[in-house]
Amino acid sequence: MRKNIYLESTPLDKALDAWQKSLQREGLLKPLAPESVQVSDSLGRVTAEALSAKISSPFYHAAAMDGYAVKFAETFGASETHPVKLRMGGQCFYVDTGDPMPEGFNAVVMIEEVNRIRSGKSEVDGRRAATEPADSAEYIEIIEPATPWQHVRTIGEDIVATELILPENHKIRPMDMGALLAGGHTDIRVRRRPVVAVIPTGDELIEPGTPLSRGSIIEYNSRVLGSLVHEWGGEPIRFSIVPDDISTLKEAVKKACGTADLVVVNAGSSAGSEDYTARAIQELGEVVIHGVGIKPGKPVVLGIVGGKPVLGIPGYPVSAFITFHLFAGPLIHLWQGIEKKAPERIRAKLSRQVASSLGQEEFVRVKVGVVGEKTIATPVSRGAGVIMSLVRADGILRIPSLSEGAGAGAEVEVELLRPRDDIRDTIVCIGSHDNTLDILSNILKKRHPQFSFSSAHVGSMGGLMALKKGEAHMAGTHLLDEETGLYNIPFIRRLLPERRIVLINLTYREQGFVVKKGNPKGIRGFEDLTRDGVVFINRQSGAGTRLLTDKHLRESGIEPSRIMGYEREEYTHMGVASAVLGGIADTGLAILAAANALDLDFIPVAKERYDLAIPTDCMELEMVKRLLDIIRNDEEFRNTVMDMGGYDLSDMGKVMYEG
Amino acid sequence: MRKNIYLESTPLDKALDAWQKSLQREGLLKPLAPESVQVSDSLGRVTAEALSAKISSPFYHAAAMDGYAVKFAETFGASETHPVKLRMGGQCFYVDTGDPMPEGFNAVVMIEEVNRIRSGKSEVDGRRAATEPADSAEYIEIIEPATPWQHVRTIGEDIVATELILPENHKIRPMDMGALLAGGHTDIRVRRRPVVAVIPTGDELIEPGTPLSRGSIIEYNSRVLGSLVHEWGGEPIRFSIVPDDISTLKEAVKKACGTADLVVVNAGSSAGSEDYTARAIQELGEVVIHGVGIKPGKPVVLGIVGGKPVLGIPGYPVSAFITFHLFAGPLIHLWQGIEKKAPERIRAKLSRQVASSLGQEEFVRVKVGVVGEKTIATPVSRGAGVIMSLVRADGILRIPSLSEGAGAGAEVEVELLRPRDDIRDTIVCIGSHDNTLDILSNILKKRHPQFSFSSAHVGSMGGLMALKKGEAHMAGTHLLDEETGLYNIPFIRRLLPERRIVLINLTYREQGFVVKKGNPKGIRGFEDLTRDGVVFINRQSGAGTRLLTDKHLRESGIEPSRIMGYEREEYTHMGVASAVLGGIADTGLAILAAANALDLDFIPVAKERYDLAIPTDCMELEMVKRLLDIIRNDEEFRNTVMDMGGYDLSDMGKVMYEG
Repeated sequence: MRKNIYLESTPLDKALDAWQKSLQREGLLKPLAPESVQVSDSLGRVTAEALSAKISSPFYHAAAMDGYAVKFAETFGASETHPVKLRMGGQCFYVDTGDPMPEGFNAVVMIEEVNRIRSGKSEVDGRRAATEPADSAEYIEIIEPATPWQHVRTIGEDIVATELILPENHKIRPMDMGALLAGGHTDIRVRRRPVVAVIPTGDELIEPGTPLSRGSIIEYNSRVLGSLVHEWGGEPIRFSIVPDDISTLKEAVKKACGTADLVVVNAGSSAGSEDYTARAIQELGEVVIHGVGIKPGKPVVLGIVGGKPVLGIPGYPVSAFITFHLFAGPLIHLWQGIEKKAPERIRAKLSRQVASSLGQEEFVRVKVGVVGEKTIATPVSRGAGVIMSLVRADGILRIPSLSEGAGAGAEVEVELLRPRDDIRDTIVCIGSHDNTLDILSNILKKRHPQFSFSSAHVGSMGGLMALKKGEAHMAGTHLLDEETGLYNIPFIRRLLPERRIVLINLTYREQGFVVKKGNPKGIRGFEDLTRDGVVFINRQSGAGTRLLTDKHLRESGIEPSRIMGYEREEYTHMGVASAVLGGIADTGLAILAAANALDLDFIPVAKERYDLAIPTDCMELEMVKRLLDIIRNDEEFRNTVMDMGGYDLSDMGKVMYEG
Repeated sequence: MRKNIYLESTPLDKALDAWQKSLQREGLLKPLAPESVQVSDSLGRVTAEALSAKISSPFYHAAAMDGYAVKFAETFGASETHPVKLRMGGQCFYVDTGDPMPEGFNAVVMIEEVNRIRSGKSEVDGRRAATEPADSAEYIEIIEPATPWQHVRTIGEDIVATELILPENHKIRPMDMGALLAGGHTDIRVRRRPVVAVIPTGDELIEPGTPLSRGSIIEYNSRVLGSLVHEWGGEPIRFSIVPDDISTLKEAVKKACGTADLVVVNAGSSAGSEDYTARAIQELGEVVIHGVGIKPGKPVVLGIVGGKPVLGIPGYPVSAFITFHLFAGPLIHLWQGIEKKAPERIRAKLSRQVASSLGQEEFVRVKVGVVGEKTIATPVSRGAGVIMSLVRADGILRIPSLSEGAGAGAEVEVELLRPRDDIRDTIVCIGSHDNTLDILSNILKKRHPQFSFSSAHVGSMGGLMALKKGEAHMAGTHLLDEETGLYNIPFIRRLLPERRIVLINLTYREQGFVVKKGNPKGIRGFEDLTRDGVVFINRQSGAGTRLLTDKHLRESGIEPSRIMGYEREEYTHMGVASAVLGGIADTGLAILAAANALDLDFIPVAKERYDLAIPTDCMELEMVKRLLDIIRNDEEFRNTVMDMGGYDLSDMGKVMYEG
């Protein structure tokens, strides 16, 4: 429990600056020594010298057409009425494309444009039997004068010897390899690939595939960081997992410094009782910075050991990803003589408020959707431990340390994690959650790889509001109007009077109480929720399931305040089921599919209708048409949904309302 | 000379359609069978199935902070004045971040927020001597109630078991690998990499590094195509060079069809006497299309042999590059279950007219420059044999087959070959050519990898006109005003009265006659150009060197019509020198550096001033500042220029005029 080293919160720019200075002092801020590679192996490598042509290409005058090499001066005056006759073997020679021009010959007449004359007989357009030798004809007749060097690739037409082919610090592309080989290069000097050692450390870490026990964590950060190194042109070396032991860790760091250009220790970079990274670096060399004012990623260590940079990277996957981008990315590029490209940026409107603490630069993962003319950014989970937030995110929004965040509707700049076009080809579905949406997303990608389906779960009401604001292509909704007994239609009429909306049924589904296997607390109905020792887990307000809950409580005359856990909210059916499985709650309302997925028991409460509300103008989009086609006609989709259980697909894809 | 198979000119869309149909018929239009790979080796691979979490992450409730696990209900009512005391080992346990929560415990109180009490004495903020065992304290004191599950990562916080991690047909990124491992995957099913055999064929082809002789061509297309395969996620296999022999070629194609998913024969795809590709495919299987209405790339062969697609690709490098993109690219992607991404597009203004023939879809390589608000596209060499046109190009402009081209100033859409940001970070220098510009380009890239320098050679006048139209950041110019004897300034005043321009001297340089080694034609001055048997090579009109030529001819009273070759124009000094070296001409006017580069002799004619004309507003650009800094202060730049010979650098970087 000893807090062995105090964790600072140096502002990011100051930390980067101090880091630069230390690296500069160690002579580390320059490209690595070059190495020689064969041009044929040079794809993606970076030139370490300017590469000029050693020879011209072509290096001789070459025929550019199949035909006859002639001296253009001997064709002067040729015409239909006065053809010029040239003797084969003396005044003209047959040449194939690419053949060298005979010495002194300076034009090619295309084979289609001559008459061949043999024993005084001409052949139309030069065709002969294949068996006949090429030189059996004695003359050709030309009916138009040749211009100097016509149909000839003259020396150096492509590349002139000594001409610059590629500058230094150029990343080699396929066509560059062709030009280098054409210019007479076989081996070239390129930057050595930076070697990056990644040392995973922690008693709790286990290798993927090892049997799991409570308290063990599957080690995967080293694979993520190694892959980033690979993408950046470097060569990752992964060390075996090092336990929380200072001397073993120091041994590993020393060994890594002997072979690698950059050493990364993950994790143990904080200031807890078992965090040895900073101490190991301190004892072997120098800690430049410990703790940077960023979120996530604060407990980062920047150090130097034996002239090599050593990075202590936090253990939470998002922290690791972000700090590695900030502190390793530029270095791995600079060592190759290239700049790390700034990520592509997009301007977007924030769909909801993001609050952030002063004094910390925050990196918020966001989903980005393009709906009509609008580009909308929506924050996803902010937990540093949630790697799925990176998988799901389309980009990262930086909140500067001197800002307290941005309000809903604010225009922000997002650094993209996915190509802009992919984002444009993504259906944005905001609203109620249903497991069917995951299946839909998968089948759409399978059938039409260019399209994606992104669903955000903010409840049925939230979905309709997103449609109102033009921030979604569709909304999943299951809102029951108590007065009319109708699903969804009264809400659309009331909330979206100004928009034309089509309601398409996705499914009917069963809602009910999710309980542990065997229903140990004996839950049978809403009245059981008030019993002592029963903990409930709720859905967020605006969710159709929350409305269902509140309707039943009202009908049964139960005060929400009497229910323990009523104020704890989850955003999805799976979240509710997971909370029950994990013992956080005894029960909660969710769909049967969620209970089945986690092998929990289920007490049915209601069957309800789940529709997709789609603005009429979105119905015309190619990706939406493809999606509807899957909903209506795809056997695999239908079967997979059926297999989850609790779904009635009798109206799947049917238009329930058109307003 | 037999034209063995007639070459058609099927429109591109019809050709693609016929190709699709044949592939469909053979059952080739679907992803390849999946294979298993370790997640740690899966970067860039494409999922062959939807991947759902096998386990939740975390799969147990884990402490999210260093501190004490408590039951939140036991902390009710805690305050500064009435702290709650909890017994260690029974009511609370010490936990490090990541530790599993003891069964039944549901909140963590941070170590900073408790007082530890041992033998009745409290310790401030929980710090103890490192030597003391953790459980020597008996109680902790809490001064604020814990909320349920505070500082606990509950089961499934990141990923809930059964939840979709990645859909099918998803290209795996670094963070995806992390999520898969966290979700309990070690091996996953991905698409097999398509194997593409590339067979180079042609008697004239030699391996890079082989001694050269007239008529031999260095084989490099297979390396370019193989690298494209690699970039697209496939696995290239390169065959040895096959001579122009039908039976050997058939043997190779048969063998390749046995191992590869796609076979590419390069070249022999035309209809010349030694073009056997179509015949080989025909005799082994079926030719679907021979000849497509595109330029370059017309003589392409699309065929099927033994159920495998076989492509005959033309030999000219640009034709090979373009046809491979059109006919192999989509297939290699589709086989992996992904779409070939459409290239990034940019709208640009055409700087000069592009004419194109009706009935052919033409692919014009263009340079793209961003100057202020304008994006300008300028066609580069259109020769299919000029691989440097691909190296130099920023993008490709497609001229549809029903168009005769586009006029200067037309707005066009360009498919980019380089990232948009790189193009934005490129200095556009249009005007006179000087070898120094190559050096400048190289040193800029070396010092500042993020910036590029692109020079187009249209002569001094062309450069000033480009500045006038706002299409260049700077122009190289060496225009002598005969009346005043001044360089450049009178021209700028006359041509650009409305723009503020700074003239910066680059060099003084020697112009003269470039002649073959030993000056075999005995050239001494302009009067020698009219002699019988002397062939001259000229520069294009608008070039400063052309003006110099014409001035001298006028002064000597020589009629241009008396000079043989006066009408043949080159665009650069190196072009002139190369023409002399290749025997196309006996002499031409160029700078000493060009003569030196190709080891030619040189008869001096004049010393002249070469300046860069830069609009004042462009002087403020970061990349221009960096360039000027190199011109003024860079030792390596200075020395490299001096080494070329013929340069006087006494005013290098000096402001000669500011208007």
